[in-house]
Amino acid sequence: MSEYQYRVEEDSIGCLEVPINALYGVQTQRAIRLYPLNGEKPLAAYPELLQGLLKVKKLAALINIETKEIDAEMGQAIVATVDYLLEKMPMEQFQVHSFHGGGGVSSNMNLNEVIANVANRDTFNQPLGSYYPIHPNDHVNLNNSTSDVLNTACHLAVIDKRKEFTGTLQGLIDTFEVQADKWKEVLKLSRTCLQDAVDISFADMFGGYRAQLKRQKQRLDNSIDELYKINLGGNIIGRKGDCSDAFFDKIIGNINEMEASDRFMHTDNFFDASQSYDDLAKVAADLDQLARALLRIAKDFRLMASGPETGFGEIILPAVQPGSSAMPGKINPTVPEYLVQCAMQACGHCYAVQMTQDHGELDYSPWQSIIISNLLDAMSVLTSGMQAFDQHCLSGMAPDIKRNNANVNTLIPTLMRLKKTHGYSFTARVYKETGGDLEKIRAYLEK
Amino acid sequence: MSEYQYRVEEDSIGCLEVPINALYGVQTQRAIRLYPLNGEKPLAAYPELLQGLLKVKKLAALINIETKEIDAEMGQAIVATVDYLLEKMPMEQFQVHSFHGGGGVSSNMNLNEVIANVANRDTFNQPLGSYYPIHPNDHVNLNNSTSDVLNTACHLAVIDKRKEFTGTLQGLIDTFEVQADKWKEVLKLSRTCLQDAVDISFADMFGGYRAQLKRQKQRLDNSIDELYKINLGGNIIGRKGDCSDAFFDKIIGNINEMEASDRFMHTDNFFDASQSYDDLAKVAADLDQLARALLRIAKDFRLMASGPETGFGEIILPAVQPGSSAMPGKINPTVPEYLVQCAMQACGHCYAVQMTQDHGELDYSPWQSIIISNLLDAMSVLTSGMQAFDQHCLSGMAPDIKRNNANVNTLIPTLMRLKKTHGYSFTARVYKETGGDLEKIRAYLEK
Amino acid sequence: MSEYQYRVEEDSIGCLEVPINALYGVQTQRAIRLYPLNGEKPLAAYPELLQGLLKVKKLAALINIETKEIDAEMGQAIVATVDYLLEKMPMEQFQVHSFHGGGGVSSNMNLNEVIANVANRDTFNQPLGSYYPIHPNDHVNLNNSTSDVLNTACHLAVIDKRKEFTGTLQGLIDTFEVQADKWKEVLKLSRTCLQDAVDISFADMFGGYRAQLKRQKQRLDNSIDELYKINLGGNIIGRKGDCSDAFFDKIIGNINEMEASDRFMHTDNFFDASQSYDDLAKVAADLDQLARALLRIAKDFRLMASGPETGFGEIILPAVQPGSSAMPGKINPTVPEYLVQCAMQACGHCYAVQMTQDHGELDYSPWQSIIISNLLDAMSVLTSGMQAFDQHCLSGMAPDIKRNNANVNTLIPTLMRLKKTHGYSFTARVYKETGGDLEKIRAYLEK
Amino acid sequence: MSEYQYRVEEDSIGCLEVPINALYGVQTQRAIRLYPLNGEKPLAAYPELLQGLLKVKKLAALINIETKEIDAEMGQAIVATVDYLLEKMPMEQFQVHSFHGGGGVSSNMNLNEVIANVANRDTFNQPLGSYYPIHPNDHVNLNNSTSDVLNTACHLAVIDKRKEFTGTLQGLIDTFEVQADKWKEVLKLSRTCLQDAVDISFADMFGGYRAQLKRQKQRLDNSIDELYKINLGGNIIGRKGDCSDAFFDKIIGNINEMEASDRFMHTDNFFDASQSYDDLAKVAADLDQLARALLRIAKDFRLMASGPETGFGEIILPAVQPGSSAMPGKINPTVPEYLVQCAMQACGHCYAVQMTQDHGELDYSPWQSIIISNLLDAMSVLTSGMQAFDQHCLSGMAPDIKRNNANVNTLIPTLMRLKKTHGYSFTARVYKETGGDLEKIRAYLEK
Repeated sequence: MSEYQYRVEEDSIGCLEVPINALYGVQTQRAIRLYPLNGEKPLAAYPELLQGLLKVKKLAALINIETKEIDAEMGQAIVATVDYLLEKMPMEQFQVHSFHGGGGVSSNMNLNEVIANVANRDTFNQPLGSYYPIHPNDHVNLNNSTSDVLNTACHLAVIDKRKEFTGTLQGLIDTFEVQADKWKEVLKLSRTCLQDAVDISFADMFGGYRAQLKRQKQRLDNSIDELYKINLGGNIIGRKGDCSDAFFDKIIGNINEMEASDRFMHTDNFFDASQSYDDLAKVAADLDQLARALLRIAKDFRLMASGPETGFGEIILPAVQPGSSAMPGKINPTVPEYLVQCAMQACGHCYAVQMTQDHGELDYSPWQSIIISNLLDAMSVLTSGMQAFDQHCLSGMAPDIKRNNANVNTLIPTLMRLKKTHGYSFTARVYKETGGDLEKIRAYLEK
Repeated sequence: MSEYQYRVEEDSIGCLEVPINALYGVQTQRAIRLYPLNGEKPLAAYPELLQGLLKVKKLAALINIETKEIDAEMGQAIVATVDYLLEKMPMEQFQVHSFHGGGGVSSNMNLNEVIANVANRDTFNQPLGSYYPIHPNDHVNLNNSTSDVLNTACHLAVIDKRKEFTGTLQGLIDTFEVQADKWKEVLKLSRTCLQDAVDISFADMFGGYRAQLKRQKQRLDNSIDELYKINLGGNIIGRKGDCSDAFFDKIIGNINEMEASDRFMHTDNFFDASQSYDDLAKVAADLDQLARALLRIAKDFRLMASGPETGFGEIILPAVQPGSSAMPGKINPTVPEYLVQCAMQACGHCYAVQMTQDHGELDYSPWQSIIISNLLDAMSVLTSGMQAFDQHCLSGMAPDIKRNNANVNTLIPTLMRLKKTHGYSFTARVYKETGGDLEKIRAYLEK
Repeated sequence: MSEYQYRVEEDSIGCLEVPINALYGVQTQRAIRLYPLNGEKPLAAYPELLQGLLKVKKLAALINIETKEIDAEMGQAIVATVDYLLEKMPMEQFQVHSFHGGGGVSSNMNLNEVIANVANRDTFNQPLGSYYPIHPNDHVNLNNSTSDVLNTACHLAVIDKRKEFTGTLQGLIDTFEVQADKWKEVLKLSRTCLQDAVDISFADMFGGYRAQLKRQKQRLDNSIDELYKINLGGNIIGRKGDCSDAFFDKIIGNINEMEASDRFMHTDNFFDASQSYDDLAKVAADLDQLARALLRIAKDFRLMASGPETGFGEIILPAVQPGSSAMPGKINPTVPEYLVQCAMQACGHCYAVQMTQDHGELDYSPWQSIIISNLLDAMSVLTSGMQAFDQHCLSGMAPDIKRNNANVNTLIPTLMRLKKTHGYSFTARVYKETGGDLEKIRAYLEK
Repeated sequence: MSEYQYRVEEDSIGCLEVPINALYGVQTQRAIRLYPLNGEKPLAAYPELLQGLLKVKKLAALINIETKEIDAEMGQAIVATVDYLLEKMPMEQFQVHSFHGGGGVSSNMNLNEVIANVANRDTFNQPLGSYYPIHPNDHVNLNNSTSDVLNTACHLAVIDKRKEFTGTLQGLIDTFEVQADKWKEVLKLSRTCLQDAVDISFADMFGGYRAQLKRQKQRLDNSIDELYKINLGGNIIGRKGDCSDAFFDKIIGNINEMEASDRFMHTDNFFDASQSYDDLAKVAADLDQLARALLRIAKDFRLMASGPETGFGEIILPAVQPGSSAMPGKINPTVPEYLVQCAMQACGHCYAVQMTQDHGELDYSPWQSIIISNLLDAMSVLTSGMQAFDQHCLSGMAPDIKRNNANVNTLIPTLMRLKKTHGYSFTARVYKETGGDLEKIRAYLEK
């Protein structure tokens, strides 16, 4: 018989049953009850964010020990607990809704409660829910406030997730380079307004794509680099003195040490950092632009591969799966289509992020949870799309050389060769007089 | 020598110089000074809105005469003035910014002042700026409030503009019908995922477009029909009694008579009508969807016309202008491209409209001016795009019959014929065994 | 020891290892490999869609039995299998990416393969992967094509999900009615442009909200009702004859019978239905508008509850959780903030849907997967937000009667009472002369 | 009698009547006929763009003279004509639709034709329409192509427009600084989640705004600085050799000389520059973010000024106009509302720009006209909004000192003072035990 077993905890609202073995406590439990998941994701679905939060908690404990604001044994217990959690990460303990209301307070309290309970249990042999000797607010959250904790954790999360993301993007750029080099001798016809224009090489076209993706990567890197500016210590709404001065002064040194970095620094203006998270929104804006660039590149590949007979037919994509449940022999550009959809999904995520910007207000924007969840989701889904496209499409793509050779000897490119030697209006006249007869036009070329 | 000549008028803020011959007065002048035009449009750029406002003013005067709330001679002077303005429409007198702040109060006052001045001058031989005997607020605005006046005028404006808009859309639908009928015998290849699929006729494809546009038109008509529900009489924020009961009771009868209609009725809930203008935003949402439909149809035409040699080349669009300043002989699908851009512009306008919806607040949304200006602009620019596309592209378009005939006898459609008689897995096997050799596959068909 | 055990299956691309006990087969396995989940959801995360697909498969089998296109025993085996799956739903067997490329072909094949394997195993005692006697394409997909199967399943899914969604919305509307009735005697001050205006009652304001939500619900119902028009039988791109005529003719009768409905009917134009899924996009547009309406209502509640001392303080929201990790005693409007974020998330989902509309092309739009996943997600997240708001905020909210009473006797509403009896310009003069002294103005009222 | 008088001109499409005195010619006339203005703006409405185009034409002529590709007299005539046009700018001659189809070819030809006609008339005494000795394509467009001409002109236009734009933005930043300094002694209450939080000063809050706007300005400057990279010489689609090498080599030196700059350089990859205009779209993305920041600041001002009695009432905005046509004495925050609407309008413009990014294709994106017109419009309308807000609102705003003093001594900030000395859980207990009684809590503070 499996009976629901619980303990009772109390907060300023009143008493509440908490599952007897839960590492979290009453405030987390309230959030779980208020915001049950209905297909949305819990905090645990964002491991980079969870790690970011844990790191901030560890950092606070380390500094509090140094500044002697916390008893050293208690502080060490917190540090040890965070290390344990970073190692084991009991995901089922972080089930608060990823964008619950209140500006992320339940996320912060979820961390505070789990850390307090584990530390009390493992170091001090106290029961779950005792919050003795370590209290979630008085000790784990000492010198912290949700607003600066969450904000800093968001920055850490995006910086952390960047590795995978830009690695994938760089991989795609590299594959474009490989393919550009591989097919650099193959001429193809360019188009303007979808109409035949002048001949170029595959290296030209792919070089253009590569240049664009490199530029977008650079922009993203610039925007993410801004996130090394953190507002930890600007508790509540950025005011000095809501954490101790001693604590404040050690933040940057300690985080750089902890992260083995020299790049973290304090934000220029802490009030600003609390009023607005446009630094995160800027990353979203960059992702949105990258998504649109990827979308159109994917569509270009579909178009160049259109056919096999009645389309452009310039390139051949790897056949990765049967293209139809009803049409035998059909191969579809499913991988570029996946990338297109990943891009659309990313744009949807980024759109949700941008909506938070005009809905901020006064001294603090409470929409940070929806920003970070959508931002991390956008990074994930673009990573998915780029990886599939790189691995299953771009790297195995090849031009149809015969088709491309024929294309570059059609009417318009021929006229362009004539124009180069004879000028626009002469060529226009030849075109008119010959009625566009390719042979006759070629004759002029050879004169 | 042309010296600036002015008269001085006063309002609750203080005194202000007004151009001596201006028909408007101090409040309009304040708005003109506060919100100088910097490329944005004045109220006068939206004639349907201006007419809507004038009609509401006339309506109010007529009812006030009936209910004896205004002296008959003064009321008649207002009516005569509105009739004069509707006829002559001195655009230069309506130069307040089309989306000045304050929920449209300056637009309403612009009307009130011009009407008062003209009526006083022409009927009572009083100088401009005297506001005697007719006062802008006490008489022209009697039983009116900006919120219900502007809201009602917006509804009238969209209903009015619908004629041109849906006429243009219907014209496009009709041309699709004509072209579908004209080319109904011509088979073409369909594609899924841009890959060759089964044969259809041009009538099939164009019939699909027509069905979609008809449906979109129906939706728009349904949404615009909702605008016959007006909130005139729900002054300020929709409360009963902020205009006289006698006035209120005559509104619907009178507006139906004035507009020779039987469709106008009062809104179901006046508070709702003041809190939110989602009825206008709904029209914008429908326009946005129509815009996207038009965009993709325009792009389909570009794609089918791509070439002349290395693209799809299925249809030939009328050559309407030289396609390039640098490439002789080049003809581009400039008209579909214009439609694409008109659609993008319309989406931009509709986006601005939707932003107002989540920024409404409490009892009244002050964003009506930006809604109506963008809504009317969206209708205008889509009209522009549809007219150009209908007249200069669709109606003169023709299939390349030879190309289409060849297309429908390529590999995939042939396999599909085989599948119809022999099933999927048999056909898939034939495809594999023949290596996709079209002749060999055709042999199976003839067995 | 847990060794990876597999069987080998083959499709037109070649051979592939499939986990030995997998109910799905080679084509599903290809999709799983091509599109690994990286935080995105699998097909199984959308139970309404999965059920819709299963129902279509059952429907096809039932009709094929009737038309004798399938051996009765095999047909019955398919039907029995679908019933079994609808009952048990082995979620781990439907792990293809929810928006893989190719227009949903892998989703359809996932169903076809699982059904074939289970039917062969359970009815005919054949091993997994044998596809004998029942073949995924030849039998389970008989007379089906991904395009019409998925489209119809999407319609079924949204119709199915509507029950929960509109039930929740109706619940919210009802609670507004209850609260309006409960507090109908309490007057409050309305505002225009956030400035004091005239007095109304809570019933007036909440009645406005209710009217808006009812209207939005009606619109959604209208849009979802359109989804009873299905294109099943319009295989591939809507052409007649790609399924058997006998099959086609029985579709509507059978689906109505299966769903115990009389509302299903065929779409007006099957080509249209394949070219564009604007019927689904229209539902998304309606959801977007509802989301924005909910967002602003939630923000209104936050504003009216702002304080406790220095804000509007007109209403008191239930205290559901401690509002701050750092500020004792602080209670925040976390539930309305959750609704705000749910609305933003929904807008993000709907945005992704709308992007598909201008990226459709030619005879078939391959973006159906991203449409349906975002549409269902938008419905889920709005349901989440509305439920929390209804249950944990609106139903327990109460006005601060004393504060509201004071509010309605302030300057502007008093002036408005004077204006009602004495007209605008008289009142404006009194206001000016008294310097806005409330006592003196009240004296005029009593004269 | 005013008869329409015309001359007949011919191009590759055929003959066409052109108004007899028109400085433009047949190609411009075609565009005017194809795309009549229906409320949209002509090219002439974008003077910065027109100047950019003229400068490029002048630049080309200067280089062609140097490289001896054009007869010196003819070249000088072109240069003189451009100087004349830059001086006089006959707007009525540049009436092609600002986003006609075809990637801007009609805009380029409008310039080419006007320049040719004026030069032939004024220097060579030839009639309009003779195109002798100077031909629009062969001479004015020599070594030019629409794609690189327009792209470069767009860059010049945005760089040019930046002066006014960032000047205005800097002015706003400066006024925030002035006001922050002026009221730096005045404490006010901050809020989180719209609920009372801790005390700060007006200098704190305004310093936050200033920091944000400075950062946004910096981003915009960075993005616009990228536009010094131009693709002039990358004719058609970026290929080398479509203009002469001699011409190409002199471009950068000459443009820097002409513009008295040392910042212009060639783009890194010319194919990229033709495939995508994300450098312009990036400016739009930055503008969008700035617009959202301004929107929320404007809404903050409305909120802080809400009242006069029943709102926040913390600040008093200058009374700039009567706030209502119906409510005497009412003053509304119309200027912040104007800024809100300007921001929404700008977002609409930027949205149209972003749509172009995923609709680019292959070697050339033909949507440049819609990008530049919306980008310049967004800059204009934000300028309008910022100027009005700066001048008519921010600079005259003042805090209600009494109200703010009272606010900072309310419950929550008092509890926060207690927490600072006694910790979170002690304070929470005091709060509970005293029932939130402010006097009793203050007593603890004084202990």
